[in-house]
Amino acid sequence: MSDAANMDGFSCPLPILEHDTVQLAHGAGGSLSADLIDKMIVPRFSNTVLDALEDQAVLTLPAGRVAFSTDTFVVSPLFFPGGDIGDLAINGTVNDVAMSGAEVIALSVGLVLEEGLPMADLHRVLCSMEAAAKKAGVKIVTGDTKVVGKGQGDGIYINTSGIGVVPEGLNLTASALQPGDRIILSGTLADHGMAVMTVREGLSFQSAVESDSAPLNGLVKAVLEACPNVRTFRDPTRGGAATTLNEFAQSSKVGIKLDETVIPVRPDVRGACEILGIDPLYVANEGKLICAVPAGEADAVLAAMQAHEFGADAVVIGEVVAEHPGIVAMRGALGAERIVDRPVGLQLPRIC
Amino acid sequence: MSDAANMDGFSCPLPILEHDTVQLAHGAGGSLSADLIDKMIVPRFSNTVLDALEDQAVLTLPAGRVAFSTDTFVVSPLFFPGGDIGDLAINGTVNDVAMSGAEVIALSVGLVLEEGLPMADLHRVLCSMEAAAKKAGVKIVTGDTKVVGKGQGDGIYINTSGIGVVPEGLNLTASALQPGDRIILSGTLADHGMAVMTVREGLSFQSAVESDSAPLNGLVKAVLEACPNVRTFRDPTRGGAATTLNEFAQSSKVGIKLDETVIPVRPDVRGACEILGIDPLYVANEGKLICAVPAGEADAVLAAMQAHEFGADAVVIGEVVAEHPGIVAMRGALGAERIVDRPVGLQLPRIC
Repeated sequence: MSDAANMDGFSCPLPILEHDTVQLAHGAGGSLSADLIDKMIVPRFSNTVLDALEDQAVLTLPAGRVAFSTDTFVVSPLFFPGGDIGDLAINGTVNDVAMSGAEVIALSVGLVLEEGLPMADLHRVLCSMEAAAKKAGVKIVTGDTKVVGKGQGDGIYINTSGIGVVPEGLNLTASALQPGDRIILSGTLADHGMAVMTVREGLSFQSAVESDSAPLNGLVKAVLEACPNVRTFRDPTRGGAATTLNEFAQSSKVGIKLDETVIPVRPDVRGACEILGIDPLYVANEGKLICAVPAGEADAVLAAMQAHEFGADAVVIGEVVAEHPGIVAMRGALGAERIVDRPVGLQLPRIC
Repeated sequence: MSDAANMDGFSCPLPILEHDTVQLAHGAGGSLSADLIDKMIVPRFSNTVLDALEDQAVLTLPAGRVAFSTDTFVVSPLFFPGGDIGDLAINGTVNDVAMSGAEVIALSVGLVLEEGLPMADLHRVLCSMEAAAKKAGVKIVTGDTKVVGKGQGDGIYINTSGIGVVPEGLNLTASALQPGDRIILSGTLADHGMAVMTVREGLSFQSAVESDSAPLNGLVKAVLEACPNVRTFRDPTRGGAATTLNEFAQSSKVGIKLDETVIPVRPDVRGACEILGIDPLYVANEGKLICAVPAGEADAVLAAMQAHEFGADAVVIGEVVAEHPGIVAMRGALGAERIVDRPVGLQLPRIC
């Protein structure tokens, strides 16, 4: 989803620096550190809070409880079809904060750079972060940059932490599901994970498999306006939809029944999953959400999602039942039911 | 300062896990990830917000503006005299938030673990974080754990982000210094950086050089109670006191005159600096602050600091002048003045 990954040099020119790769001294707090921050980072994220360059940002927030979340991104490779580590780091934390129903206000960015990283790669990632933050409507207000030696990192790791404000009276939780609730998925599964995997495995397809990396704060807002009684939202990232749904079932002590025939997966993604022997239910998504809503409000939620750019393929994929509490079951095309377990062991490392 | 680093097995027993080193699968979002989080991490930091294990923490904050800061810790080695990466990661962000005058409320923790890291080392670091958070009086409310392959990290990297609440009406900034203000340092310089360096360089001294890693939120509070007109606080970490003072002088467009003869440095630290050819003014501290205060309030601030466990050696080290704006000058024992520049190039990498 990142236009920034394709941003050309003209719209986002590489600043002139003394070195064309990252040096250990860029992380040591001296003049090279200052140079990197002043020329590469501050111009990308400029706003009055960040520009003060104090050791902390001070924000005046609207009334309400504060949602706070953190995520470190170690995806390999740094650049993949549909995005890169930069927009992923912005969208990932925007989404984690947004799933509480909060208005996302501000992010922090902590960079760990490996010595020798080409400045051009860093610049491309920073431009991508800038574009993603703009699209999500959030400000980057504080940051930190460290450099580790060659062979002690892998290009760039990025931590983002985010804060948002939860509207008064809204208490979304994975433990609130009730029998009869509908489970709604905002779009196709497994795009992000398979985009990364196909690059890693050197697979190519006639139509490219692309990451779904996208900010979901606008979609959450649209759904809450249509249906303030949503039980909970969650974005099925690491561990995929299977993990999210198991968390729902276990937290709420209810069963969940899925209908396999309606779960949307793009044909090229399905093909990649088949080649690699991977179940799309367990693959990370970075621009999808799953929510549980009272049955009577499912149509309103679906309509609100389908009207939004990131919810066009939204669908009811199942319902909450009183039977088999803690268990997610799925009925396939031939009518047989199977249990959808939590994933065991190594799924896909370094996917986000 | 960390008792946790010396914590014995009895007070903080290592949980029984399937593997005695970190596996890639511990970071992949499946059952091994859940096992690591449930057995190693949640019991250390347990509180009602964290225990909910939602993707974000939701906090009810007292009224006031919110201070927000982030820092990633990549110190090498992980364990050093006087502390380890765990207490450093807690104290570092507590201090960055506290320097705004905020009451520090909550931290996030993002771990990047290297495949093969002994679980015993991870456990020791987590116990140290637990003890440091308790000492600082802050809660860890949200977190994330990633695993990277062998040779793509260096044991553990830790990002902590923190939020606090700034009392109404308090606006500390490095741009508020006025000629006549006094510059006060809360204690000895260069302890942390030299503790790490002496371990790295294999030096040993008769009396150990120990890190000063400590939470300064209590000290800030005590000073503000004694003198609400403090101009600004900052903790001189990477780049040392020289960098902090240059930031003060440049932000406020004033000069700063220091008296070299009163700047406290422990004899063993001074010895280590001499052997390694390092100026203590440029070495990182992790439990010290520098503040600028109106001349008439310097005595009250000094008294408040000296009464606090982390400010016993506090001293006025200089004053703010109208001459040479943006420049820090220091008068030595023989009366000669020299300019204290920002550090150039490689100081001490991976010191925090």
